[in-house]
Amino acid sequence: MLAVGTVVLTVEDLDRAAGFWRQALGYVNRSEPKEDWLILDPPPGELGTSIALSVTGYAQHYPPPIHLDLYAHDQQAEIERLIGLGARRVDWDGYPPGADWVVLEDTEGNRFDVIDAPGWDPVARKTI
Amino acid sequence: MLAVGTVVLTVEDLDRAAGFWRQALGYVNRSEPKEDWLILDPPPGELGTSIALSVTGYAQHYPPPIHLDLYAHDQQAEIERLIGLGARRVDWDGYPPGADWVVLEDTEGNRFDVIDAPGWDPVARKTI
Repeated sequence: MLAVGTVVLTVEDLDRAAGFWRQALGYVNRSEPKEDWLILDPPPGELGTSIALSVTGYAQHYPPPIHLDLYAHDQQAEIERLIGLGARRVDWDGYPPGADWVVLEDTEGNRFDVIDAPGWDPVARKTI
Repeated sequence: MLAVGTVVLTVEDLDRAAGFWRQALGYVNRSEPKEDWLILDPPPGELGTSIALSVTGYAQHYPPPIHLDLYAHDQQAEIERLIGLGARRVDWDGYPPGADWVVLEDTEGNRFDVIDAPGWDPVARKTI
């Protein structure tokens, strides 16, 4: 058994990052937060990728070699919601014509894409 | 609906990276590979985090602000298997005493941790 357990994001402020990601994805703490480490899971019984938040002191680096792609049924509404939670729009000039994604970054500078994915079914892993 | 769709890893050689990650995690191509882009999913009906491979030209940066934690029932056996597939051990002096993880990197330099997680149940998201 070898499986993706979590995606680990470096953060400066653990509480701030946890607040953002819990609300962004509807996640819950796996256990009590440590001073510098917290794992967030989907609610019990729900599918999804767990995220770990780690206070590392590591610098952000752009463009990021690894990033999350978040799939949204309503991309524009989710972008506005995420910005309301503390995400920032990234000023990036690399979009090709017709790009179906928008680049944001979380409260800690971790960049991610919000993908226009109406009809996406996470169980079937396809648009239905 | 906002959900983690994929974790996107930058790669130099798409075929090489896809071969590594398909074998590492038992994944399958979501669709036909493009020249610079491929999504890998768990086999149909199985749980897991999808991975996207993207030929970006972006430089790796260490320590990485974002990385994958892979959970292993048999950590040592999985490390040896991954090295046989083309992973490399990372010479890192940051392990605290009793660390339950080992740092490797894939064929493209994407670093990840292999966590000693005997008894881990990915559905219950706990050790049982």
